[in-house]
Amino acid sequence: AEQFDPATHPHRRFNPLTGEHVLVSPHRTKRPWLGQTEPPQPTDLPTYDPACYLCPGNARAGGERNPAYAQTMVFTNDFAAVLPPPAPTAPPAPHPLLTTRPVDGQCDVLVFHPRHDVTLPRLAHADMLTVVAEWARVYAARGRQPGVAHVQIFENKGAMMGCSNPHPHGQVWSLSEVPTIPATELANLARYAAAPTAAPSDAPRGPKGCPCLLCEYVHFERSVPANEGRIVVQNEHWVALVPWWATWPFEILLLPYHRHIPSLLHLTDKENDSFARILSAMTKRYDNLFQCSFAYSMGIHQRPVPAPDGVQDDDDDDVAHLHLHFFPPLLRSATVRKFLVGFELMAEAQRDLTPEQAAQRLRACSEVHYLDAPA
Amino acid sequence: AEQFDPATHPHRRFNPLTGEHVLVSPHRTKRPWLGQTEPPQPTDLPTYDPACYLCPGNARAGGERNPAYAQTMVFTNDFAAVLPPPAPTAPPAPHPLLTTRPVDGQCDVLVFHPRHDVTLPRLAHADMLTVVAEWARVYAARGRQPGVAHVQIFENKGAMMGCSNPHPHGQVWSLSEVPTIPATELANLARYAAAPTAAPSDAPRGPKGCPCLLCEYVHFERSVPANEGRIVVQNEHWVALVPWWATWPFEILLLPYHRHIPSLLHLTDKENDSFARILSAMTKRYDNLFQCSFAYSMGIHQRPVPAPDGVQDDDDDDVAHLHLHFFPPLLRSATVRKFLVGFELMAEAQRDLTPEQAAQRLRACSEVHYLDAPA
Ligand SMILES: O=P(O)(O)O[C@H]1O[C@H](CO)[C@@H](O)[C@H](O)[C@H]1O
Ligand SMILES: O=P(O)(O)O[C@H]1O[C@H](CO)[C@@H](O)[C@H](O)[C@H]1O
Repeated sequence: AEQFDPATHPHRRFNPLTGEHVLVSPHRTKRPWLGQTEPPQPTDLPTYDPACYLCPGNARAGGERNPAYAQTMVFTNDFAAVLPPPAPTAPPAPHPLLTTRPVDGQCDVLVFHPRHDVTLPRLAHADMLTVVAEWARVYAARGRQPGVAHVQIFENKGAMMGCSNPHPHGQVWSLSEVPTIPATELANLARYAAAPTAAPSDAPRGPKGCPCLLCEYVHFERSVPANEGRIVVQNEHWVALVPWWATWPFEILLLPYHRHIPSLLHLTDKENDSFARILSAMTKRYDNLFQCSFAYSMGIHQRPVPAPDGVQDDDDDDVAHLHLHFFPPLLRSATVRKFLVGFELMAEAQRDLTPEQAAQRLRACSEVHYLDAPA
Repeated sequence: AEQFDPATHPHRRFNPLTGEHVLVSPHRTKRPWLGQTEPPQPTDLPTYDPACYLCPGNARAGGERNPAYAQTMVFTNDFAAVLPPPAPTAPPAPHPLLTTRPVDGQCDVLVFHPRHDVTLPRLAHADMLTVVAEWARVYAARGRQPGVAHVQIFENKGAMMGCSNPHPHGQVWSLSEVPTIPATELANLARYAAAPTAAPSDAPRGPKGCPCLLCEYVHFERSVPANEGRIVVQNEHWVALVPWWATWPFEILLLPYHRHIPSLLHLTDKENDSFARILSAMTKRYDNLFQCSFAYSMGIHQRPVPAPDGVQDDDDDDVAHLHLHFFPPLLRSATVRKFLVGFELMAEAQRDLTPEQAAQRLRACSEVHYLDAPA
């Protein structure tokens, strides 16, 4: 019988965080593409755009005027998806299959920098450090508000990922309920902590000594020879890798590996510094892959909310391990993306190159941004 | 305290088929859109395109030549995501968190009609009946092949849904494993059959007398006054409705209501006839909503595979109830879509108008296609 070759034979991989599978069809990369292409990302943005509602001093959609901010800026989304408490009580369900739960919270916009024409990979180290600090500050402030059950920090980068303004910014949605995906991840992390499926290794563990799915996973990935594995870049605390179960073509999971870290608030100054450095390194590789401003959605998963000030809460700390997901749609070039439609929406995620091939491609990219590279 | 109004107050709804929630933010419809717009769908297609690899008599990407087919055509995808059996056995997992399962199967392309310029809503009744019969034929043929565990019929319509050729066609992917989403739906249907959460109604039941989540749900929906509810169109056997838990702006669930029907093979001639008619009626409304060829991904969920010929298999028949999902991305116009990105990918589905509002909009559309309407 033929020998199994993951780079040739279709197969399924399991995502232990979500409990879902992904269908890997490596031979599909040879498929010609005659479908929709994406307009290229703009490359000639001004440093200040008088029409931009995020530039310093400009008026926003809601009428308010931005301060002349010099670093980052946070404000409530003028078209927030959830509204501040209290939400009116929902009426009784007309049928047990038609239930409503009220939800309240806050939607913040977090502007990364006053300059209209930069992006995370174009930020100086000090500016990236400020962004990282700002994520932690907003997580703490919103997550300690009464009634907030979960804080979701994310960034939509690029028009093809639904971003309507190239001015560098992300969002923070704080809700009175834990949303579906983090709730599923936390349940799977808790299940692993209680009943690990792998023999204990010397990977870091939670404060109560329970094994952590993500600490175990990244510990294993670091043991694989670098040129065969899925790691794109690492430093003294952090690893950026294309996970075994990646769905998006060049998906990255970014996480700390040297100790179990429940949230942004647990990071030391040194860990924040290396966090800013690896963010810069991996997003520069992203831009260099197809020599364009690489579109993605990014999200930070961690403890849903911090423990109340001064409280030690080992149970939640034991389960959550800080990590960032990057879901970039481009597959072959700056204009040809992977569509997650049809089969993917109705049956199962499907990808056209292996995570190992994607990691190899990203490892081959330079960490000098192509716009800064000598010609 | 304020009274809860689902058309004003953000809330969460539960999807009992998938076990996921959707965040409903009705007030967000007022948000201005400055982001990416979609190119309009082409309206001037020729009836025959010499460059199209699906038109009769033309050569395909793989080199083969299409027959001069007069009705429908089925062939194996030249760039199939899964390959025919046997798949080589996967090697042992290098770590329990990194598992591989081999998968094999078939990917078929099902061309709906020889004419290059038509779509499902533009088909004559007899041609739509042929498509419906062809879905059943391929489901039976592929589903009874040894080793096939699930047959997924779907259609990607429109370039914005990843379709690379406007020639009317769908696909059928038959796999040796039941994919994630149908497996989840079937597990939730089975759970409901064993432990229904609603008091028994006089809705239809499965052959073993168990209550069916979908039969109960559609039974309830039909009891809601038409102008308040979520039903878009119905006939003597079928209902097309915007489900309580819809994620996509104008999502539709299409299903039979008058009896429990496990699969396409259980449909009578009369039920096939009314199936073709409601497909035509609802897709015409879709096109009329924004006066364009309305893009969507469609998928048929039913028994994963038919019972072997001549065998009665009440257990599986009891659980599965035939239904079609339509996931259309357009939100505001022929060119402005909803992006399911950022928060949606990292936390939870989110929608900007209520399912009731969407149903109301679709009910207000004509069933005469706008291209056929007198000026
Ligand atoms: O096979 P097609 O139609 O070229 O491809 C389309 O449908 C497939 C199945 O949903 C997707 O995997 C592709 O991303 C999409 O472009
Ligand atoms: O709020 P924004 O950036 O205008 O909107 C963007 O991100 C939101 C959160 O992921 C999505 O719901 C929108 O569809 C998308 O366009």
